[in-house]
Amino acid sequence: MSTLPLSERARTMLARPNPAVMGCTRGDGQPVTVATWYLLEDDDRILINLDGGRRRLEYLRADPRVSLTVLDGANWGTTCSVQGRVVDLEDDPELVGIDRLSTHYLSIPYPNRDSPRVSGHIQVDAWSSWHL
Amino acid sequence: MSTLPLSERARTMLARPNPAVMGCTRGDGQPVTVATWYLLEDDDRILINLDGGRRRLEYLRADPRVSLTVLDGANWGTTCSVQGRVVDLEDDPELVGIDRLSTHYLSIPYPNRDSPRVSGHIQVDAWSSWHL
Repeated sequence: MSTLPLSERARTMLARPNPAVMGCTRGDGQPVTVATWYLLEDDDRILINLDGGRRRLEYLRADPRVSLTVLDGANWGTTCSVQGRVVDLEDDPELVGIDRLSTHYLSIPYPNRDSPRVSGHIQVDAWSSWHL
Repeated sequence: MSTLPLSERARTMLARPNPAVMGCTRGDGQPVTVATWYLLEDDDRILINLDGGRRRLEYLRADPRVSLTVLDGANWGTTCSVQGRVVDLEDDPELVGIDRLSTHYLSIPYPNRDSPRVSGHIQVDAWSSWHL
């Protein structure tokens, strides 16, 4: 694992709207993984956004440590994983965060305007890559 | 989350050589995720195989609980996640396990014949799907 900053190769790969899976732990220590949208920000933090009703949000509030593995959408043998903590979890009443992600992935604002959303940022502590 | 058995849709999706990410926890509780090959077996267990020198192997011996998220290779918005435990971790001196995985994904035996390998099986406790 390397510490920040990310390499330019990693940054270029992470900047694309790739498939990704985030892992966190449940209160009893059981790992939980789920596919997620993510967006690399200018300061090497990574924006994520969660449905406000998800249990995963409780898990992150209890233990903010996460791991995110990003697969290159064009060649998923190429991967980049980051370990860190989710910081600045905040309600997203105007859907600003989820619209940034949706626009990045789908080129349109997020279609579902009815469910409460919460934004957070992964503060990267360490990262590694494979075939990058 | 549902308990076993898997649905036929889930089984059909998981039977393909899809991209997947496995999460486990480090001794200090930090989640760790990494891309992995997997193979669904007849008894709804899931074969994995690790490099014998990986620290992940120590993590799994200390706490066998894992989560695996599989992305449909043809449409990665479709996902299936399982939570469970890695059981029957065993050295794979003849590379039987990694060859099964490599043949499934690459249609050839595993190219690297020099590194020690270890096979394990994910015993699924619960599973869920998205857009399946």
